[in-house]
Amino acid sequence: MRLSALYMPTLKEAPADAEVISHKLLVRAGMIRKLTSGIYTYLPLGRRSLDKIAQIVREEMNAAGGQEIFMPMVQPGDLWKETGRWDVYGPELLRVKDRHGRDYCLGPTHEEVVTDLVRGEVRSYRQLPLNLYQIQTKFRDEIRPRFGLMRGREFVMKDAYSFDKDAHGADASYAAMYDAYTRAFKRLGLRFRAVQADSGAIGGSYSHEFMVLATTGEDTIVTCTQCEYAANLEKAEVCYANEPLDRGECPELVEVETPGMHTVAEVAKFLELPESKILKTLLYEADGKPVAVLLRGDRELNEIKLKNLAGVTNLELAGPEQVKKWTGAAVGFAGPVGLEVERIYADEEIMRDTDWAAGANKDDMHVLHVDIPRDVKLTASADLRTVTMDDPCPACGGGIEMPRGIEVGHVFKLGTKYSEAMNATFLDEAGKEQLMIMGCYGIGVSRILAAAIEQNNDEFGIVFPPSIAPYEVALLTLGAKDDAVVAKSEELYELLTDKGVDVLLDDRGERPGVKFKDADLVGFPIQVVVGGKALARGVVEAKDRRTGEKAELPVDAFEEAFDAFRRHVLEGWTI
Amino acid sequence: MRLSALYMPTLKEAPADAEVISHKLLVRAGMIRKLTSGIYTYLPLGRRSLDKIAQIVREEMNAAGGQEIFMPMVQPGDLWKETGRWDVYGPELLRVKDRHGRDYCLGPTHEEVVTDLVRGEVRSYRQLPLNLYQIQTKFRDEIRPRFGLMRGREFVMKDAYSFDKDAHGADASYAAMYDAYTRAFKRLGLRFRAVQADSGAIGGSYSHEFMVLATTGEDTIVTCTQCEYAANLEKAEVCYANEPLDRGECPELVEVETPGMHTVAEVAKFLELPESKILKTLLYEADGKPVAVLLRGDRELNEIKLKNLAGVTNLELAGPEQVKKWTGAAVGFAGPVGLEVERIYADEEIMRDTDWAAGANKDDMHVLHVDIPRDVKLTASADLRTVTMDDPCPACGGGIEMPRGIEVGHVFKLGTKYSEAMNATFLDEAGKEQLMIMGCYGIGVSRILAAAIEQNNDEFGIVFPPSIAPYEVALLTLGAKDDAVVAKSEELYELLTDKGVDVLLDDRGERPGVKFKDADLVGFPIQVVVGGKALARGVVEAKDRRTGEKAELPVDAFEEAFDAFRRHVLEGWTI
Repeated sequence: MRLSALYMPTLKEAPADAEVISHKLLVRAGMIRKLTSGIYTYLPLGRRSLDKIAQIVREEMNAAGGQEIFMPMVQPGDLWKETGRWDVYGPELLRVKDRHGRDYCLGPTHEEVVTDLVRGEVRSYRQLPLNLYQIQTKFRDEIRPRFGLMRGREFVMKDAYSFDKDAHGADASYAAMYDAYTRAFKRLGLRFRAVQADSGAIGGSYSHEFMVLATTGEDTIVTCTQCEYAANLEKAEVCYANEPLDRGECPELVEVETPGMHTVAEVAKFLELPESKILKTLLYEADGKPVAVLLRGDRELNEIKLKNLAGVTNLELAGPEQVKKWTGAAVGFAGPVGLEVERIYADEEIMRDTDWAAGANKDDMHVLHVDIPRDVKLTASADLRTVTMDDPCPACGGGIEMPRGIEVGHVFKLGTKYSEAMNATFLDEAGKEQLMIMGCYGIGVSRILAAAIEQNNDEFGIVFPPSIAPYEVALLTLGAKDDAVVAKSEELYELLTDKGVDVLLDDRGERPGVKFKDADLVGFPIQVVVGGKALARGVVEAKDRRTGEKAELPVDAFEEAFDAFRRHVLEGWTI
Repeated sequence: MRLSALYMPTLKEAPADAEVISHKLLVRAGMIRKLTSGIYTYLPLGRRSLDKIAQIVREEMNAAGGQEIFMPMVQPGDLWKETGRWDVYGPELLRVKDRHGRDYCLGPTHEEVVTDLVRGEVRSYRQLPLNLYQIQTKFRDEIRPRFGLMRGREFVMKDAYSFDKDAHGADASYAAMYDAYTRAFKRLGLRFRAVQADSGAIGGSYSHEFMVLATTGEDTIVTCTQCEYAANLEKAEVCYANEPLDRGECPELVEVETPGMHTVAEVAKFLELPESKILKTLLYEADGKPVAVLLRGDRELNEIKLKNLAGVTNLELAGPEQVKKWTGAAVGFAGPVGLEVERIYADEEIMRDTDWAAGANKDDMHVLHVDIPRDVKLTASADLRTVTMDDPCPACGGGIEMPRGIEVGHVFKLGTKYSEAMNATFLDEAGKEQLMIMGCYGIGVSRILAAAIEQNNDEFGIVFPPSIAPYEVALLTLGAKDDAVVAKSEELYELLTDKGVDVLLDDRGERPGVKFKDADLVGFPIQVVVGGKALARGVVEAKDRRTGEKAELPVDAFEEAFDAFRRHVLEGWTI
């Protein structure tokens, strides 16, 4: 491709609403343009990268036995009513009535559609397993779309769905997708981790998220410094050394005045105790019913763990009025002693110590010397808090790290959630009707484009992994009026194109500074620069965009020199 | 690909709602499945053909200087309000409000979006011309979706938009697209005609439609038996030999009773006149105002011609009450003599004759001996009727034919309709602000899949053009338990795959009859059959799906024999 014929409107300034680097650079590099909130047009360069990402994903899906189909974007509401998601999904599901007043929605995901497709046709175990996938535009009406392609409303996803006849087959399907994802992300040139993820209220199932590592990531990952353990923060367990407990003696309960001391920090300071000796009592409305949770004052509750323990879908922190009603006191003075709520849960950690300070359920009062087994009507104790850097790896006891990541893939065991709701059955070997066992597997194709940039950029612009750069090589003609330079550029352009190298020739009549800046900004992995002076010395220059490394390639042995340089660049990208 | 691992659910019966052959065969061949009215899922084979069509279109668009982008499906209503189409477009535009109550629509076309994109960035004549296209899912809320992929609600289109600095450039852009379409449809293996089309109320512009020829086509085309003239029925002009007129004498007007004679046929029979001597008087509401049209009793009015002549957008045949109000008589007795409506138009043909019988604007009365110049207050005469087989070619005077076609492409000069409404300007060479001149160019990618089948099928199923068949070769293993047959099949499968031939191996444990039926039904262009008896004779059989021609390919010189057979098959498909 010639840049003179390419629509690549690069910009000096990022748009005012761009908060993250990938959004800024995608717009500045002329790859995307905003149409409206959370909805973007892909310009030629953006579309090329998107296509390359999609193609790598497609190849790995096909290699793993996936079959590509293409399902509609507009879905009938009836199917969503059948699974109950029409009512549960919330306003992110964009609903629309057609001209005849029938309910439809724009698909944010396709479990209903694919299950409907298969239940009509697959009747025998002989037709299983089946893995159907598509690469398609999705819509999710985010309340606050932001971060460019990171959290848009319209986006491109690969979504796959597996159907198996038994648990063993479902495990194999899941493993095949896990492996395909691993291969795909490696080929995409991204540093990533597959982490255990919480699978919500769907019983018996589990899931992994694939996270692109980036300091700007929205998600926190927990990884071990010694073993392979990796989980997202919601999922990561806290484990305790298996030592005999000696909680020690606890004096009698004593109430003390703590006037106006609402927060853990205030109470700790006032009582001259460390925060770790204050018992934090949180009150929640869990599916409409009161639940109290106890944990150390310096710890954070992991709400997902609480949801799973309590078996509830909706969890909301109780407001001041509810706290008053349930405890008789203002916010800040709730405590477990004498608390009359149906369920009181304790984080496992506090079961290993005694002599706590806690709210007294009276305004401006706390109580000292609380011993949980002695003083509290506990429902259950479990791991309920968020892991910290000081905790050991739950797998091996080693140290942990907590890097940031961007979720770009998710593999998920669905079990029979959808096949049961939609009656997707088959006849097994014995002629008996059975529910299909399903899995679903998503990759955020457009999100990968953003995540790749969040991971790979510098002060000059994007640093694209070669496999997804819009072009692998930028060939810069310095001096559009210098006949020798132009002739050599054209010759090398032809040579590289004939070799099958994905090359963009910057043949514009622009100054060298503009060409260098644009090439750096878009982040083509290799720059080949044809300039008058160097050419007079019989060389052209090559640059590795990632490392900044430069080399002089002799024009009379260009091809071998280029191949060697390219190999070197690509090796640097091996994941 | 192995058929044992392919999701290809063929059916013996077509669905009850399938009216046309392409719909029946696409479903029976396991290529598509209906999700809901006018909305289909593409199964693996359907998606492959769809992809092949898209890829050919893409390559020809790129070769013609088009740049592929990817615009959103969900479009802000504000842009449509800017061009006025929000109010004009009607219920086919599926409108939706997002969670914040803002207006959006599902894009049936992208003029607004692409003009919005370009007006923000293209500022100089140096950035023109520009041709941006995409291949994307569109939505049009048809009132009565039918004919499967022929008239669906959700469909795949290639839509391109050109921007030029002047009329000369716009002509060149149009010509480039016309040529690209011609190349694309040839490569698609379709017999087609590019025909002149009406371009509606957009002044000064013109357009061509690309029609796939098929006896089942919805559209009628007018072509010349001698010259290159081709137009759609709406556009085709009627011309008359340039001879001096001798309309002859006309007696005085005489009113006659024609009790209960409402139709032209009834009146002609009653008056013992040929239908061609009855003057048909049609009354229309044209943008709300009455318009009368006169034409020969045996002719059909072409409403498009009337719209263009009258310069109106909406045309509705007047109802009985309006007819009564305007003429004083019931339907069937309207006539031009003494008719008091603002505009009376005559079809050119009736200006060449005299002595007409016409309605008398009184119930059960007609008037004889009407001479138009003498008796009628005419507004204008023009070519207003639909062409017939008896008319001469308007270009050369030769004979005409009227084959049926399916519209699969449309090239259209937009002029400044959108650039003016949306203020898409640039600075010309003199630094003066000018409106961009636009064109738009559509290809119905999913519709081509249906049209190709309407054109190419027989009693056994689809007869796919090789370039868009889901697989070019079906390799049938007859006898999954015969080791020699299986071994030879596998060997040939590997050989063909390695050669880059797009081959599907039917390795299922099915009976030969099932395999033959399925291969014929899906319509793979070449069948290669490995059977025990033939193999014992040292041959495999090959069949040309289109002609039914068979050949024996010796296994010890398979490759050359196959190549020759394939060349022969492909030659038969040359357009």
